Amino acid sequence: MISRMSRKNAFYAQSGGVTATINTTACAVIETARKHKNKIAKVYAGRDGIIGALTEDLIDTSKDSAAAIRALRHTPGGAFGSCRYKLKGLEENRAQYERLIEVFKAHDIGYFFYNGGNDSADTSHKISHVAQTLGYPLICIGIPKTVDNDLAITDCCPGFGSVAKYVATSIREAGYDVASMARTSTRVFILEVMGRHAGWITAACGLAHEKEGDAPHILLFPEIQFDEERFLARVKRVVEGDGYCAIAVSEGLRNRDGAFLSETGLKDAFGHSQLGGAGEIIARLVKDRLGYKYHWALADYLQRAARHIASKVDVEQSYKLGVAAVKLAIAGENAVMPVIERVSSKPYRWRIGVAKLADVANKEKMMPRDFISEDGFHITPKCRAYLLPLIQGEAPPPYKNGLPDYIKLKNVSVPKKLPAFKI
Amino acid sequence: MISRMSRKNAFYAQSGGVTATINTTACAVIETARKHKNKIAKVYAGRDGIIGALTEDLIDTSKDSAAAIRALRHTPGGAFGSCRYKLKGLEENRAQYERLIEVFKAHDIGYFFYNGGNDSADTSHKISHVAQTLGYPLICIGIPKTVDNDLAITDCCPGFGSVAKYVATSIREAGYDVASMARTSTRVFILEVMGRHAGWITAACGLAHEKEGDAPHILLFPEIQFDEERFLARVKRVVEGDGYCAIAVSEGLRNRDGAFLSETGLKDAFGHSQLGGAGEIIARLVKDRLGYKYHWALADYLQRAARHIASKVDVEQSYKLGVAAVKLAIAGENAVMPVIERVSSKPYRWRIGVAKLADVANKEKMMPRDFISEDGFHITPKCRAYLLPLIQGEAPPPYKNGLPDYIKLKNVSVPKKLPAFKI
Repeated sequence: MISRMSRKNAFYAQSGGVTATINTTACAVIETARKHKNKIAKVYAGRDGIIGALTEDLIDTSKDSAAAIRALRHTPGGAFGSCRYKLKGLEENRAQYERLIEVFKAHDIGYFFYNGGNDSADTSHKISHVAQTLGYPLICIGIPKTVDNDLAITDCCPGFGSVAKYVATSIREAGYDVASMARTSTRVFILEVMGRHAGWITAACGLAHEKEGDAPHILLFPEIQFDEERFLARVKRVVEGDGYCAIAVSEGLRNRDGAFLSETGLKDAFGHSQLGGAGEIIARLVKDRLGYKYHWALADYLQRAARHIASKVDVEQSYKLGVAAVKLAIAGENAVMPVIERVSSKPYRWRIGVAKLADVANKEKMMPRDFISEDGFHITPKCRAYLLPLIQGEAPPPYKNGLPDYIKLKNVSVPKKLPAFKI
Repeated sequence: MISRMSRKNAFYAQSGGVTATINTTACAVIETARKHKNKIAKVYAGRDGIIGALTEDLIDTSKDSAAAIRALRHTPGGAFGSCRYKLKGLEENRAQYERLIEVFKAHDIGYFFYNGGNDSADTSHKISHVAQTLGYPLICIGIPKTVDNDLAITDCCPGFGSVAKYVATSIREAGYDVASMARTSTRVFILEVMGRHAGWITAACGLAHEKEGDAPHILLFPEIQFDEERFLARVKRVVEGDGYCAIAVSEGLRNRDGAFLSETGLKDAFGHSQLGGAGEIIARLVKDRLGYKYHWALADYLQRAARHIASKVDVEQSYKLGVAAVKLAIAGENAVMPVIERVSSKPYRWRIGVAKLADVANKEKMMPRDFISEDGFHITPKCRAYLLPLIQGEAPPPYKNGLPDYIKLKNVSVPKKLPAFKI
């Protein structure tokens, strides 16, 4: 009788840029909740993230079968929709927070799971605060997710290991290609990767370089101001030595004034501004100043959606964080986030820890300077030791008709009970 | 005694843009030759393709172990180096052809294997002709290879099936990503793929669209002149219906005058020329005219080097064509190319056939018009029936330290015997 009384619904939402494994976490949350029906009645998901909560646009995940939910484990993207929508400060827009509590109340929601980055940790923390103020019993749990790997406290972020494996594989493969073409054609290959502020994904490309001469030869980090002359001298040296040069460049590469190259461009030999993404600008610079034929690739969403080459370690961590989130919730923990704690790098051992949302909120974890080589163009052995465990193992999706067999859920709406709310 | 006397060395070279499976063919040629030592003494490979033959820069493949050669089966790029170097016509530069024969004579080469596209078939054919004229006994065999899938006679081209699997997988994955972001962020995603003249790779993206609403929604083929207004109307309709739109565009997209978009650009709303690759131009057009937020990706070399997601059918065909080439050679066939013959599509059955080099040389196989839907924006069921068998099955490489474990051969040079030759 007591356990039935304490039975509440749960709300789960995906936030910000999605990853190859955010659905793996969703799968874990739903599967674990289904195992604890005495505590959690139903899991409602927000359609398009927190917007779904504000607009009372809830998805009843119980309408999807166990098999469908299981298939989320290997499906990229955000199965319920995500959003880039930051709630304003408490003082500025208390009405939004109160609306959330109103929706939760209307649907008997006692657990709030928010799967996102540092913004989302901040939002969860604020919602927890408002619920307490209003005397509404709500357990708020953040669950980490971001390809950028820039969250505080957690040793690594779910989603990052899979991007890392994809970009390192991609630049290795392209390196083999360019090496074959260099005699008469392409000399320089450039891959632009994500990470506007932190160079973790750029660093991951460096894992493909296992010995002298391996691609990539040069990494351009957002943490290191771009020095045109030093860069060009290095490219020339590499091409003269190895015959070709493979370069990974962060979308967030900055010039000496600290401005993004993608926003300010570079001047070409004729004084014309060259705009474009960082990869394209670097490519044209190489052609313009050194005369080498280039090819460049822009991985864009392909990198963060590449579930077909996900890291097994990443998939496992993404799943276990979802399990831990539900367990923390039913144990009555509030305003916390399960995180990855590294026990050792070699052999790699990790466990789930717990952080306070307040300690994760709005912080960015940059690459330590000693993870970048002194010349600024590559990673150090220390960085490699950190990164390498995160890309271990393969976890391929099932294939059907020659292509990965991903799931689209039914996403049945929960009937609305409240008047509309304008966001 | 007779068989020893007829024992000759073989020359093998890779030509033009490399693929994820050209080394699979190289592996087959060398492994099959090693099984026929009574006919073929050693396989010499041209360093950087035919340039290696002209400059007497030969690689002794017998210096690499059976295990190393076996690893070629799963290694992308061109293991001996390739080149973009077209021999001139026979009349213009007879000296080059005679030099080749001189090098072959000096190294007791009786078999010439040229792994490439339609240019290479033409070159092989000419070399065969010159050898006959000079009375030098030489068996010339072309082996097909090209990601563009545009060779005549063969039903499909080795290398294409793997690109096809990669691009279809990539746009499906990105489609899942964009679908999740569309409510507040990216509405339109564009993937630029290879195929400057023929839209086979663009068409392959269409395989990911299995039912209404699946990505990609729109394909832009080089065969269909780009009509800005019709395209924009379609994008708008798709976004209004499905919430987002995924587009695959060929690098060879042309405007109404038949000029490449990538060379002529488009005018923006202010009359400024927008240059860049086709994908970037299309992306900016969508933003400029419809106001939708976009992301775009440029697969570039990643697509043709993506051995990690190679098609098993493609790997098998690439291997068996290499085996067939050697068997044709030792059977004394000359000036021919083994090709793929399709016996049936459903179930897929194929066998190796033989084409005359003269019939393959310098021809380009374009997409038939009835492979493209009437509105020009997608593939037809007929096209799907043709393409689908080519991406079936997975053939993942071995992994080591979390990354595909590709081989770099020793590539030991054969001592030179002739004076230098300027190319």
